[in-house]
Amino acid sequence: MDLHSITGPSFLKELNSEQLELLSEDIRRFLIENLSKTGGHIGPNLGVVELTIALHRVFDSPDDKLIWDVGHQSYVHKILTGRADQFETLRKFKGLCGFPKRNESDHDVWETGHSSTSLSAAMGMAAARDIKKDKNYVIPIIGDGALTGGMAFEALNHIGHAQTDMTVILNDNEMSIAPNVGALHSVLGRMRTAGKYNKVKDDLEYLLKKVPAVGGKLASTAERVKDSLKYLVVSGMFFEELGFTYLGPIDGHDLEELEDNLEYAKKTKGPVLLHVITKKGKGYLPAEQDKIGTWHGIGPYKMETGDLVKSSSTAPSWSGLIAETARKLARTDERIVAITPAMPVGSKLEGFASEFPERMFDVGIAEQHATTMAAGLATQGMKPFLAIYSTFLQRAYDQVVHDICRQNLNVFIGIDRSGLVGADGETHQGVFDIAFLRHLPNMVLMMPKDENEGQHMVKTAVDYNGGPIALRYPRGNGLGVPMDDELKAIPIGSWEVLEQGTDAVILTFGTTIPMALHAAGQLRDEGIRVEVVNARFIKPMDEEMLASIFSRNVPVLTIEEAVLQGGFGSAVLEYAHDNGHSHAVIDRMGIPVLFIEHGDVAELMDEIHLNSDEVVKKVKSRINHNSQQQERSNAL
Amino acid sequence: MDLHSITGPSFLKELNSEQLELLSEDIRRFLIENLSKTGGHIGPNLGVVELTIALHRVFDSPDDKLIWDVGHQSYVHKILTGRADQFETLRKFKGLCGFPKRNESDHDVWETGHSSTSLSAAMGMAAARDIKKDKNYVIPIIGDGALTGGMAFEALNHIGHAQTDMTVILNDNEMSIAPNVGALHSVLGRMRTAGKYNKVKDDLEYLLKKVPAVGGKLASTAERVKDSLKYLVVSGMFFEELGFTYLGPIDGHDLEELEDNLEYAKKTKGPVLLHVITKKGKGYLPAEQDKIGTWHGIGPYKMETGDLVKSSSTAPSWSGLIAETARKLARTDERIVAITPAMPVGSKLEGFASEFPERMFDVGIAEQHATTMAAGLATQGMKPFLAIYSTFLQRAYDQVVHDICRQNLNVFIGIDRSGLVGADGETHQGVFDIAFLRHLPNMVLMMPKDENEGQHMVKTAVDYNGGPIALRYPRGNGLGVPMDDELKAIPIGSWEVLEQGTDAVILTFGTTIPMALHAAGQLRDEGIRVEVVNARFIKPMDEEMLASIFSRNVPVLTIEEAVLQGGFGSAVLEYAHDNGHSHAVIDRMGIPVLFIEHGDVAELMDEIHLNSDEVVKKVKSRINHNSQQQERSNAL
Repeated sequence: MDLHSITGPSFLKELNSEQLELLSEDIRRFLIENLSKTGGHIGPNLGVVELTIALHRVFDSPDDKLIWDVGHQSYVHKILTGRADQFETLRKFKGLCGFPKRNESDHDVWETGHSSTSLSAAMGMAAARDIKKDKNYVIPIIGDGALTGGMAFEALNHIGHAQTDMTVILNDNEMSIAPNVGALHSVLGRMRTAGKYNKVKDDLEYLLKKVPAVGGKLASTAERVKDSLKYLVVSGMFFEELGFTYLGPIDGHDLEELEDNLEYAKKTKGPVLLHVITKKGKGYLPAEQDKIGTWHGIGPYKMETGDLVKSSSTAPSWSGLIAETARKLARTDERIVAITPAMPVGSKLEGFASEFPERMFDVGIAEQHATTMAAGLATQGMKPFLAIYSTFLQRAYDQVVHDICRQNLNVFIGIDRSGLVGADGETHQGVFDIAFLRHLPNMVLMMPKDENEGQHMVKTAVDYNGGPIALRYPRGNGLGVPMDDELKAIPIGSWEVLEQGTDAVILTFGTTIPMALHAAGQLRDEGIRVEVVNARFIKPMDEEMLASIFSRNVPVLTIEEAVLQGGFGSAVLEYAHDNGHSHAVIDRMGIPVLFIEHGDVAELMDEIHLNSDEVVKKVKSRINHNSQQQERSNAL
Repeated sequence: MDLHSITGPSFLKELNSEQLELLSEDIRRFLIENLSKTGGHIGPNLGVVELTIALHRVFDSPDDKLIWDVGHQSYVHKILTGRADQFETLRKFKGLCGFPKRNESDHDVWETGHSSTSLSAAMGMAAARDIKKDKNYVIPIIGDGALTGGMAFEALNHIGHAQTDMTVILNDNEMSIAPNVGALHSVLGRMRTAGKYNKVKDDLEYLLKKVPAVGGKLASTAERVKDSLKYLVVSGMFFEELGFTYLGPIDGHDLEELEDNLEYAKKTKGPVLLHVITKKGKGYLPAEQDKIGTWHGIGPYKMETGDLVKSSSTAPSWSGLIAETARKLARTDERIVAITPAMPVGSKLEGFASEFPERMFDVGIAEQHATTMAAGLATQGMKPFLAIYSTFLQRAYDQVVHDICRQNLNVFIGIDRSGLVGADGETHQGVFDIAFLRHLPNMVLMMPKDENEGQHMVKTAVDYNGGPIALRYPRGNGLGVPMDDELKAIPIGSWEVLEQGTDAVILTFGTTIPMALHAAGQLRDEGIRVEVVNARFIKPMDEEMLASIFSRNVPVLTIEEAVLQGGFGSAVLEYAHDNGHSHAVIDRMGIPVLFIEHGDVAELMDEIHLNSDEVVKKVKSRINHNSQQQERSNAL
């Protein structure tokens, strides 16, 4: 059928099984075709085609609340709720969001991007329903990976205790972004092989009935029964123990089985967990065969072959550069261990893992544990390299405060995907980390101007033994600069003048340095000489250089690809006012107090007026203002 | 024995069982006597006397790592490691810390205060041991309450999977600060009643052997077996499923049983969970009989009767005032529901709970879930009041960012224990919340000058429907001001001039207002007129008033009982520089970038130069400076 003609999910209830099968095929074809052009989370969405159809047939969205954990698997839901025509703009500036978005549709009742929030949200919605004595259903859909996040367990513990009516769909595909790890993963594995729970209970009964028949072999039979019990009874018991009615496991690509079980869950009092086995990438061979997570979220590709359309950059990726430099140093420094919360691929730690398997820890989606485990390692003289995306470090704020900074432990935090990340949008922009780390005692925070400085900063972090040190680096590739052969530590808190100038000073770091240099070049053509400083240590700052700058009485402009409130610019304001330079003219450029949506980073930067034209404007307005004042003052 | 003579735990290995029993009694008497004078966490410590002795007999601290989760139960450990003589100074300024402290003793290998961190720390230490091929033991001791915190589950999941050698002591006393809640609590309850795991396995075998004997009743017997299996086999299975060897439950006050099991655990490969049942307050009747958590942590008391030494303040406690005002409003506003992460007593929500049981949610130690559940409630038109201590809100930073602020939901966050909290010390000071909330889009943040304004702010928060709104309030009691009968909402972002003045302006809020008024009075006596502004909205600020203040060209001083970096003072700096007042003279007073240790709040404030004398000094230095400048300028 023409998916563009869909305006809402109610039509689904009229279709027969043949039509539904055709619809599934159409949706898969639509996804494979469209995403080959835009990129997106293809694997997760191909895996939930039948599940999403079944949910929309059995339940009445939006009265019944479908809550998509993480949310990157909501494309089919978006198609079925009338948004097929927007897929050309998927994850593009002002286009369709790659995650549920409440202002896109009434059917998106909860926005996500980070994992493991759906059960808590569901508990809130179900509690509201019960207080208001409403009758709607609440259905969170959570992956087996997201289930390992601590807050999901906090919610299971509460829901099971409160016996609140809801149907939790466990979408078990044995992979989140990378293959899942952890004991819970093994628990689920046993459930998968054990077969259906109800079947298991029947088997047990049968086994016990057989006991007399084996006569003298009774003892050994009892023994066998006992041994099997652990694996038989326990299937689903993990959830039963927590107060859930466990159903499954069932085939997530069998519409009839899905609907039967959803109908049964609907009728069951109290919380139900329906264990659904799906295949990530189902129906598209390159994605189905993916073993490491390449096809989880992806850029454009050639539909026929599955070949990825290569990025044009030949510079190393930032994640790769940082991880590989850590690996290189780990060869001679046995203190170095790497920790990732479920991002071995994203953080490019595969090389480290294969060379130092015993010094590499993928802890699953568990940012809090990852962070405090790093602290534990540091107490024993190790040098943990915690590679974590800026937006996910938000999850471990207290662990950074309470465990790392307070005990002043030598943890090296690699803050990956700092700054704007682009297509993933507002849940993933790494713009808050400076504001949430800068006020922490003992924290050192730095960001390199290019990948060569980046590799030296890894060395700096590894050599530093004064406490926690964090290295921010952006998403994407470096600038393609020549790389030094020998790594050298950069003195903590030292800045560097990149371009001399007498009319104004720009203080900036990381990704906004090229912007500043470009603006300075333009201004130079107009006869304005701007000094550009690589303020590579956001904390501590180079106070000697700051003193010298402020003594010159020229306008100062700070630029950062991070939220302005409490950020680097504010640190400069604080320095000036605390050190007798309260008359200094200081302007700040950065991310305004807004959640920045998805789009190309360049488009987003223009949208928030963070580009070299604005730098030029800002500097000129100050220079003119100052020279006018100077003139007035001379005229007096 | 004289506990003061203990210099380390090695003497314990020489004692016989009679001597150990006497020692236990001595320790209990010592604790009851000393804590009656200083206050402290008496209940938890009386509960772990035998456990701590057994741990120090079986293991060799500090080579073997004892990691005390939360850490308020480490007093016995402190006594046995040679710190009995410091108990007179417990939790006092420069005195013995109420939590493990690495600079106090080599035996304190990990610092705590917040719960649920011990398993992650243990995993870090054990991983370091294994990499270094060391042989020491790692023993985290975690309560049943702390086990519900999500990060503890994240760690269990990782440890069970990695099969790392360690002995986890589950100190199960059915109560953390308040009675524990949650499904896991029921799981533990079943384990407690089911008896020892090994015993259970024997029973099962016996039962199966009996099957032929009952002849024709086979079917019903099988049925019975089947029914019991769930409860029999499952005892301990929750942890076995996660990859742990489960031992117990055992009596935590039986030294012999403790030692036998610890020795067994020591010999067992892979992770072991030893389930130890203890009685909180054991050996002191008032504490033993406590059902709600009064004797968890407590002030001084009369040893003979257990009567608490009353605080002299007759003003309402802040927690009580805020919670009771919310309760009052809940009578006519059915949207209001209350959520607490395990602090129904601390947050004084007992009244709310008894009046609105179906609108009150104690979710256990689960700050992340509490926060996102509040967001879920808000999506359905409810008005959740999330009462949470400032230091524990750190645990839910991402949930505030990603779930509440990003979706701009009407959640009312009551930030209890904001500012310095005193005796609990550096892990509990509520000094970072302004810095970690101020940069978040959509957030409103306010703090009242007294309890009357406090009650109006509850009304303000309830009436506000523009998104998240947070109300900070301190630990302890109000000022004893008269209370208005009628509640009224305060216009969002409006400040109030408390005292007029022309020479300087002080901008401050909450607890530092009395300090500012006191200083202003002193300055007035010296002929200096200082304006004092109640900057009750930290965000958004009263920009109209700020514009008027800065137009007057007088020195401005900001005061806050919160960290200076990125705090309220920085917001004022940002405003000034963003709005053409870059020449304004602005000084900031607040908490420096330090972790502030334990002590009386007044002592701590003096220590960091945050008192009215310093305010006077600061203002005078600016006035003199300015008037000298003025004179010089006039002389030209």
